[in-house]
Amino acid sequence: MQGLHLTADLHDCRCALRWLVDAELLGQHCVQLVEAAGLQAVAQLFHAFPMTPHGASGVTATVLLAESHLCVHTWPEQRAATLDVYVCNFGADHSAKAEALMLALLTLFDPASIERNQILRGQVTPPCAPA
Amino acid sequence: MQGLHLTADLHDCRCALRWLVDAELLGQHCVQLVEAAGLQAVAQLFHAFPMTPHGASGVTATVLLAESHLCVHTWPEQRAATLDVYVCNFGADHSAKAEALMLALLTLFDPASIERNQILRGQVTPPCAPA
Repeated sequence: MQGLHLTADLHDCRCALRWLVDAELLGQHCVQLVEAAGLQAVAQLFHAFPMTPHGASGVTATVLLAESHLCVHTWPEQRAATLDVYVCNFGADHSAKAEALMLALLTLFDPASIERNQILRGQVTPPCAPA
Repeated sequence: MQGLHLTADLHDCRCALRWLVDAELLGQHCVQLVEAAGLQAVAQLFHAFPMTPHGASGVTATVLLAESHLCVHTWPEQRAATLDVYVCNFGADHSAKAEALMLALLTLFDPASIERNQILRGQVTPPCAPA
């Protein structure tokens, strides 16, 4: 269960609006990006929130991976999105693939600003100072 | 898009084994816990990985929320699980509901040890020191 969880919160995305409002388009592209990064998609779920008087609402695209998951949420009215790429490293280190997938998604959304974080998941033994 | 993302990595879960291997059972219970916490499930996806020569494999249960998402991965051979509860606070602060959902899941899995983290998502303006 040890792994790497990358998050990114994207502001002022300069991509075409369709990437923020079309759940099927975004979701299928996410599956392609997962595979291009060398990760293995095992299931997928795309959801579009109902239209509002102000226009199209956001979408959620989740791709379950053999290695854990990808989840994208969008807020088109703010031209914002959040990204989660979590890979467990069971059997092999998938960290570079996670970074490649994150980079591909950032390239797609083209945000003007980003906050990124990463969490090392499932670390059984905390690092120790030498005795 | 501002919100709270709680993570927990669970070791030596003392729950019944079925919670770690039965995707449908776990997933449906996750939906119930989401609703009990006052959050709104909008879609769900449960996936069981194939059996191995060593027995049942892990499962993934994802519940998409009006407020963002819940994702649970299990590793029954290690009696381990990881939890993600992410709520955006669009319109209202859902942080207490996220904490309640996390507590309910921790109670379900009953781990001997836990690593927890939290990320404040989508913070446009970083905190500034007074001038």
